Amino acid sequence: MATVGKVIKCKAAVAWEPNKPLVIEEIEVAPPQANEVRIKIVATSVCHTDLYHLFESMHKDGFPAVLGHEGAGIVESVGPGVTEFQPGHVPVFSPECRFCKNPKANQCEKGWAADHYDVMATPDTRFTCKGKKILQFMGTSTFSQYTVINQMAVAKIDPAAPLDKVCLLGCGVCTGFGAAVNTAKVEPGSTCAVFGLGAVGLAAVMGCKFAGAKRIIAVDINPEKFEKAKVFGATEYVNPKDHKKPISEVLAGMTNGGVDFSLECVGNVGVMRSALESCTKGWGVSVLVGWTDMHDFAARPIQLISGRTWKGSFFGGFKSKDGVPEMVKAYLDKKVKLDEFITHNMTLDQINNAIEMMKRGECIRTVLSVTQQ
Amino acid sequence: MATVGKVIKCKAAVAWEPNKPLVIEEIEVAPPQANEVRIKIVATSVCHTDLYHLFESMHKDGFPAVLGHEGAGIVESVGPGVTEFQPGHVPVFSPECRFCKNPKANQCEKGWAADHYDVMATPDTRFTCKGKKILQFMGTSTFSQYTVINQMAVAKIDPAAPLDKVCLLGCGVCTGFGAAVNTAKVEPGSTCAVFGLGAVGLAAVMGCKFAGAKRIIAVDINPEKFEKAKVFGATEYVNPKDHKKPISEVLAGMTNGGVDFSLECVGNVGVMRSALESCTKGWGVSVLVGWTDMHDFAARPIQLISGRTWKGSFFGGFKSKDGVPEMVKAYLDKKVKLDEFITHNMTLDQINNAIEMMKRGECIRTVLSVTQQ
Repeated sequence: MATVGKVIKCKAAVAWEPNKPLVIEEIEVAPPQANEVRIKIVATSVCHTDLYHLFESMHKDGFPAVLGHEGAGIVESVGPGVTEFQPGHVPVFSPECRFCKNPKANQCEKGWAADHYDVMATPDTRFTCKGKKILQFMGTSTFSQYTVINQMAVAKIDPAAPLDKVCLLGCGVCTGFGAAVNTAKVEPGSTCAVFGLGAVGLAAVMGCKFAGAKRIIAVDINPEKFEKAKVFGATEYVNPKDHKKPISEVLAGMTNGGVDFSLECVGNVGVMRSALESCTKGWGVSVLVGWTDMHDFAARPIQLISGRTWKGSFFGGFKSKDGVPEMVKAYLDKKVKLDEFITHNMTLDQINNAIEMMKRGECIRTVLSVTQQ
Repeated sequence: MATVGKVIKCKAAVAWEPNKPLVIEEIEVAPPQANEVRIKIVATSVCHTDLYHLFESMHKDGFPAVLGHEGAGIVESVGPGVTEFQPGHVPVFSPECRFCKNPKANQCEKGWAADHYDVMATPDTRFTCKGKKILQFMGTSTFSQYTVINQMAVAKIDPAAPLDKVCLLGCGVCTGFGAAVNTAKVEPGSTCAVFGLGAVGLAAVMGCKFAGAKRIIAVDINPEKFEKAKVFGATEYVNPKDHKKPISEVLAGMTNGGVDFSLECVGNVGVMRSALESCTKGWGVSVLVGWTDMHDFAARPIQLISGRTWKGSFFGGFKSKDGVPEMVKAYLDKKVKLDEFITHNMTLDQINNAIEMMKRGECIRTVLSVTQQ
């Protein structure tokens, strides 16, 4: 069903430069080339990684760009060599190579873009606006009515799935849930601590519960987030600001020496250290889930030598081609929650409001309606 | 067979203060108290941890002390409550508690001495010299003709084992071998890198080979060590000083992106970082084996988020009560080497020579004859 498409003109939110509001522009979306799929985005949500690139990243060469990477849409046309796709898929980032083929890994050499993984903008793009090349972001760019994605980054899902809900599975929810289930491998009856209660942290709480944890301690400096954490399965709540002692000592006191599993869902190297130190000696496992690349994380060697393990999780350890459809099924089967993450619904035109709200910590996930299904 | 012993006067090497030669003294060794065993040390070897305490540690309150923790001896008498011991055991450090009982852990809460694990000197002692209390070290103190050890730190071994060889199993050889086999869980056909080729590193090389690794890359800034590494199974040799590029890039170039497993056997936080960065993305596992507690180890979060795991190993992940007898059996069955680690044999009187040689990197293991069997 390879199609020779034409350029589509459509609406997109363009990030012309760092630290500035996005601008709704008319852009041109070129037809898909070999192994590419052009997708009509129906719904997208805003993730902290979009904000990170816009406001915090040191990679100022990643502009102008169309951000957005939690999205769901419908295949509009496909390029040469694409045989597996039909309408109704979630575009996600991830792919296939010697890493994809190894059951121990869930990341792709191609996705890492050689050694410049952290640039997070694809070296090539199908977007132009006002005669200028507009970069894509994380191989997706979902803040646009149409986008072009390599087929390796598209996952086929149950057509019954509501796209304005399952778009969340493009990044944050899979990341947090999988970090607990796949990376930490939380065990039944265990005690867990989740640091940071944004969407990723709440999904980690949900993952801990799904895996059978007995105690799930939710840690955040904003106690207003504890109520939501309870919805996803948290059993106890700690605000580090309520204590003079380091949070690791507070948790050690609550748990006879430390938790079995801890998940850092903030992206702060100080919190990463606290999360490791909050684990028990002997067998504690701590997982970095939050993203930052501007500072080193660190600890004393004895923290590992005394039996702890430090891991990291990318997209929750899911291979997206399998993982996203599985998570969609789990949602349709009511085994995982998605609706409860969505605090606001807006349109693509309101994206700067959504970004500002997220920056101020006033929402968990805002879903933007982009086009009609 | 509980015996009510008398004080024994015997010879020991006393560390009166940091950074000074040991002094051969006559000391008094009190009888064993409840759950303790008094052991006649037949042979002991000198490990870097002894030198670390003497020359590098910040814990200046750990003196005067009798150092030494790689030893083998014969039970002389036992205190009340000891029923399992007869002559012919290797004293090792490790024990029993909720950690001991958990198959995931190999370390003991009691052994950690509450929260002062890193002091490494027991809070109580059975030694006096010239009217002064002499501290014990790591619960053992093998640089003495007699010592008193808690029964939880004594392992029963095959009486056929030559004590002047299996004394090495009290620390370094188990630590390196087990770090590869038990902690890293090196897989058949894998590619490994071992940083640092002292006794621990050589034992790690041996462990990698035992586990079936296909390629074992030995890394040291002293190329004279490569010949010995070959004896234990190394297949390739890299001297970081031969390269302008960082060692992690050299290894990545040799291995299509990085090794599957790396073991840091130096105790240097810079080498710890290199060892992590030398692992492949996706599934690389790096293990801290070398000891230091004076600086933080550190890396960028992406190193873990891209799929690496950072672990630490203490006594090679062996539970010593089981592990040491197993390793003794493996030696008697010629499945692991011990003789090849021993570069020098001396007597306890020559201990300062042994320490100075080790400090200069001129030996792997020196075995000191302490008493006649």
